Amino acid sequence: MNEFALIDRYFESRARRDGGVVIGIGDDAAVCTVPPGQELVVTTDILVENIHFPAATPAADIGYKALVVNLSDLAAMGSTPAWFTLTLSLPEVNESWLEAFSTGLFEAAHRFGIRLVGGDTVRGPLVVGVQALGLVPEGRALTRAGARAGDLIYVTGNLGDAAMALDMLNGAILPGPSEQTVFMTRLNRPVPRLRQGQELLGMASAAIDVSDGLVADLGHIAARSGLGAIIERERIPLSDAYRTHLGESGWLPALTGGDDYELCFTLPAGRADELRWIARGWDCALTQLGTMCVGSGVTVLGQDGKPLSLGAGGHDHFSAQVS
Amino acid sequence: MNEFALIDRYFESRARRDGGVVIGIGDDAAVCTVPPGQELVVTTDILVENIHFPAATPAADIGYKALVVNLSDLAAMGSTPAWFTLTLSLPEVNESWLEAFSTGLFEAAHRFGIRLVGGDTVRGPLVVGVQALGLVPEGRALTRAGARAGDLIYVTGNLGDAAMALDMLNGAILPGPSEQTVFMTRLNRPVPRLRQGQELLGMASAAIDVSDGLVADLGHIAARSGLGAIIERERIPLSDAYRTHLGESGWLPALTGGDDYELCFTLPAGRADELRWIARGWDCALTQLGTMCVGSGVTVLGQDGKPLSLGAGGHDHFSAQVS
Repeated sequence: MNEFALIDRYFESRARRDGGVVIGIGDDAAVCTVPPGQELVVTTDILVENIHFPAATPAADIGYKALVVNLSDLAAMGSTPAWFTLTLSLPEVNESWLEAFSTGLFEAAHRFGIRLVGGDTVRGPLVVGVQALGLVPEGRALTRAGARAGDLIYVTGNLGDAAMALDMLNGAILPGPSEQTVFMTRLNRPVPRLRQGQELLGMASAAIDVSDGLVADLGHIAARSGLGAIIERERIPLSDAYRTHLGESGWLPALTGGDDYELCFTLPAGRADELRWIARGWDCALTQLGTMCVGSGVTVLGQDGKPLSLGAGGHDHFSAQVS
Repeated sequence: MNEFALIDRYFESRARRDGGVVIGIGDDAAVCTVPPGQELVVTTDILVENIHFPAATPAADIGYKALVVNLSDLAAMGSTPAWFTLTLSLPEVNESWLEAFSTGLFEAAHRFGIRLVGGDTVRGPLVVGVQALGLVPEGRALTRAGARAGDLIYVTGNLGDAAMALDMLNGAILPGPSEQTVFMTRLNRPVPRLRQGQELLGMASAAIDVSDGLVADLGHIAARSGLGAIIERERIPLSDAYRTHLGESGWLPALTGGDDYELCFTLPAGRADELRWIARGWDCALTQLGTMCVGSGVTVLGQDGKPLSLGAGGHDHFSAQVS
């Protein structure tokens, strides 16, 4: 047995076999049971060193994040995590790296109730891939396409902290120690809004997770729903740490920075009270940013109520999505 | 929208949406329907340039093979392909490469009836990952673990041609043009034995696909079943092209070469006639190689009926699995 097959065994020994796993790791494929009345939700994301995480990122954080970014997609569909597979291309077999990576990975897996059922480890450049499978009641999944004109636009949590972490790593800002912790935790240990997504089933008209930046991702809801979106910049929820650097950094990290993994969703205006009641039980903020409207693209209103010209700066997706 | 998001759109436009796909590519995740009475089969494999395929491999073959090696795992479980996701790390956006890659990928997808439901394309070193999902009747999946002492050992098709292709690319053998075609087709366009796997449900006691070499993979059946396996070298099915080079290359490519993607399986001896009858409809050979026995590991008998000493040569897995 070669060293990479041994790594597969290493992951196998840590994987749980409850929760619908009929045959786990160690055969040609896993076998899982989908309960009656549930549909299967399927997503996949890969992380590449120096593109999705800085080379200096702790291995435990890489493992944690590789799983959680996929869970965030499951959250955006309103689904419950069930099973995942891992593909790992590694330049070398480094036991302490693997120990830390798998500790981070399984910490996320146990915290969010998802089971590793298969994988493939090979020698190659560092690339981490996860495919996550979730369950959602038949015909109930949230999509990007269901928003209607007049629906209210919401976002969970705060935006922009992960982008601030990258600004910090690039030396563009110099935060104090406690702010550094806030920013780095948001970058390396994002929280998938699973509970929120599940509780929005049958309520939200459209949903997406904010992975490419608010303007880009709300732009996807707008495009798929055949509408426009208008939001007010001053309503965008910022952490205290972000507010400390708002003068230097401005609003762009919150508007166009990626990696926040909050949920952005739309809701028929008549259900706003019901939503507020539900959100009292949540462990994160809930903010109404604006309204869906006839038109296209995303319009951001400044303090004076006039549309901002956001220019070509920010994320790749940016220029294409702003009206 | 950045260039990699555009690639995702490119794949999206070619993906079929029938076959239980409720929500396809283009949302945060796909949603699929698992029919009642079926279990979900999950597998994943990645291919890395210069490790799993030579750098000179045509892009269409990389696309074809990346999917088919996963289908081979589904075949080994006796399952029917349903859906797959693709993760693609690419050093650059090369349109003609992408066109060829996706043509090969979708050629395999359409031929074997599996639908692309999601993916992630990023900039990075060339790494192709596929996660395949299949369906199998509840409680019926073939595993590596069910063989009993006295069960007969079979293999589909011929063995060793893919290893011969690598020997050829390394300059170790110099085959004629028609043999070159046989070897390269086996290396680049393996045939997943899906029909065979499905027809073995309820018949075979254990099954595996031969991806790491016969001795290693039969060794997995032996280990998981708590038994030994005895096979006769002279029974191993070889193509005419292989036989032409048997004098030079010997039996090692057939015994220990990987990438054949044939099925190796075990069967209660009392069902041999029934199997022969079923296999008449197959488009590949079926060969009985030997018998499962009390003990451990894989024993290969030579022409004189004595166990061969296979030495430390061949595949990584080799030494550990031979008794």
